[in-house]
Amino acid sequence: MIKTAINIDKIKPYRAGMSIEDVKRKYNLVNLIKLASNENSFGPSPKVIEKLKKYSENAHIYPDGNCVSLKEKLSETLNIDTDNIIIGNGSNEIIELTYRTFLYKNEKVVSCFPTFSFYKISASTTNGKYTEIPLQNYKFNLDGIIECIDNMTKIVIICNPNNPTGTMVTKEEVENFIKAVPENVLIVIDEAYIEFANKDKAFKSVEFIKKYPNKNILILRTFSKLYGLASLRIGYGISNKKIISYLNRVRQPFNVNGFAQIAAFEALSDSYYADYILNEVKKGKIYLYKELKRLNIDYLESNANFIFFQTSQDNDIIFEEFLKRGVIIRSLKSFGYSKALRVTVGKMEENIKFIETLEKIINEKFKNG
Amino acid sequence: MIKTAINIDKIKPYRAGMSIEDVKRKYNLVNLIKLASNENSFGPSPKVIEKLKKYSENAHIYPDGNCVSLKEKLSETLNIDTDNIIIGNGSNEIIELTYRTFLYKNEKVVSCFPTFSFYKISASTTNGKYTEIPLQNYKFNLDGIIECIDNMTKIVIICNPNNPTGTMVTKEEVENFIKAVPENVLIVIDEAYIEFANKDKAFKSVEFIKKYPNKNILILRTFSKLYGLASLRIGYGISNKKIISYLNRVRQPFNVNGFAQIAAFEALSDSYYADYILNEVKKGKIYLYKELKRLNIDYLESNANFIFFQTSQDNDIIFEEFLKRGVIIRSLKSFGYSKALRVTVGKMEENIKFIETLEKIINEKFKNG
Repeated sequence: MIKTAINIDKIKPYRAGMSIEDVKRKYNLVNLIKLASNENSFGPSPKVIEKLKKYSENAHIYPDGNCVSLKEKLSETLNIDTDNIIIGNGSNEIIELTYRTFLYKNEKVVSCFPTFSFYKISASTTNGKYTEIPLQNYKFNLDGIIECIDNMTKIVIICNPNNPTGTMVTKEEVENFIKAVPENVLIVIDEAYIEFANKDKAFKSVEFIKKYPNKNILILRTFSKLYGLASLRIGYGISNKKIISYLNRVRQPFNVNGFAQIAAFEALSDSYYADYILNEVKKGKIYLYKELKRLNIDYLESNANFIFFQTSQDNDIIFEEFLKRGVIIRSLKSFGYSKALRVTVGKMEENIKFIETLEKIINEKFKNG
Repeated sequence: MIKTAINIDKIKPYRAGMSIEDVKRKYNLVNLIKLASNENSFGPSPKVIEKLKKYSENAHIYPDGNCVSLKEKLSETLNIDTDNIIIGNGSNEIIELTYRTFLYKNEKVVSCFPTFSFYKISASTTNGKYTEIPLQNYKFNLDGIIECIDNMTKIVIICNPNNPTGTMVTKEEVENFIKAVPENVLIVIDEAYIEFANKDKAFKSVEFIKKYPNKNILILRTFSKLYGLASLRIGYGISNKKIISYLNRVRQPFNVNGFAQIAAFEALSDSYYADYILNEVKKGKIYLYKELKRLNIDYLESNANFIFFQTSQDNDIIFEEFLKRGVIIRSLKSFGYSKALRVTVGKMEENIKFIETLEKIINEKFKNG
């Protein structure tokens, strides 16, 4: 039999939430809402949909392998050269590329737990190692990561805002962290949810790339959340030109499909729609905070488009009760919590349905329990 | 500075042909035809376009990470279990996954030259090695590959039909090759163009997967050519269940976008359109053969949707003359030929324009040269 180059048994594949179709079938449901994957419930901009429809006739033409137009658009938006940008088949692909490019045998990635699970899963497909230290008060423990750095550490990853807690580290904390990380270590800052951050917390970490030219900082962004393009798989990385040129050499020539490229370009052009979404999510959060308070449910103030909350009951049971009633949310059992769950902020009617369902579950199941 | 895990300088990135926009700008052209990348000039099936348009509204939903519906459709079509199939972000991604999964440091990939350049490029992004032996009479030299296999050989790749020559090895030759390759070596058979093969040459290598259960055979197919979905990036691999389960563990959870999945499903359902394309390409080849003969141009009978031909002049000069006249074809200089070129079989009006242009170039430039 053929031998693999990596330890296959070590890889624990990503467990996506159940799909709407799976749940409908299992519980014999007709109506169902999904607030489990932090998708944008409002969908992409109508202008994006229009462009995609037109582009359907071009499915037979190879995409631009260098994503030139999209990078030019991002370059304007971010005020950074196109050579500082790489586009990926989702930002996941850029994480994977980073590991493949930099992680030599037994070299380490250091991050916190719990956070986005792909950092760890992807490391398990390499011959590198993955070290995780606990969050501190639900926040990334940057000092703890610094303490963990040794000769074998090659990459450190911060998820900011963090998934699944929605917490953020401050600009000052990130800047001190950057100063403390050695020059031979790559600092990855995953900002998948940064657009949703509260005004007082938000900051532009892109400026650190210019400010600290001797450090290696790679910022990750996605079009899957605010811009509603999860189906198309498109994200990007921003770093110094050397790091970007390395990653560009290692990636496949046509890694990003043409539909994703034109949709992302159009999404960036429609800032009116992005503002509309941000405002709707903000209104949704205010509503959800108020209702969770009324129901005496603990939650964390969120800098993302989801809310971390917990009840007094086992989270897998609560999750199942939601499913039966046609609402998919996420139990955070696999993230190490026994009671916490995560709900995506959706359209107002979805948020209301979520609260009504939560109230029903508490009243019917646990009032006297 | 940060050290890379691989030798970055060794990687020579893929050189795609010039895009239509590049050429229009450079030569100040309005009308231009591209017969350079073996795309399907007829575009995808109208039914596929219809589906894509409808699906545009769903861009915000994560794709099915396991491509369940598409694999079920392929399973019927190919008469093989879904567990024998992996879907990739283009078949390129499956090549890359294969290398990452199986190629340990200094282990070798063996193939022929010239063939599809990504086999070699992708190997250069690993710590493996790549060995290539010359084609024999424009065909894959299977005996030569067998002779090259040593203790460090992990993967052998056949491109059948071969790009850029359009030649095929026979069923008997492939079967003898499979028998001769050791059980600890992975045999990759890239059939990107197989649907275009001439009836007397075509054969089903999928059956070898069942017939030789102790061998490791991975067959690659694409939706970029016959089905006209190059922009969407979707291909698939067929192998024994063990190999497929390994590759599935190593791949990203959402490697294939949702638009590609529904387009590929619909394309497989519209066999009427696929037959129409095959017939048009066949008519195009008959026309091109006849005209090339008339012009006294050497060419190879093709089992693909392109034709390998050569003139008495330097191919880069001929290529440039075509460009100036609004026709993009491919010079095969980087494939090791000084005179050969490759032209995609397009719509009849494109084939006619190609022949007219070729005739003009010969008459104007080289008649007395």
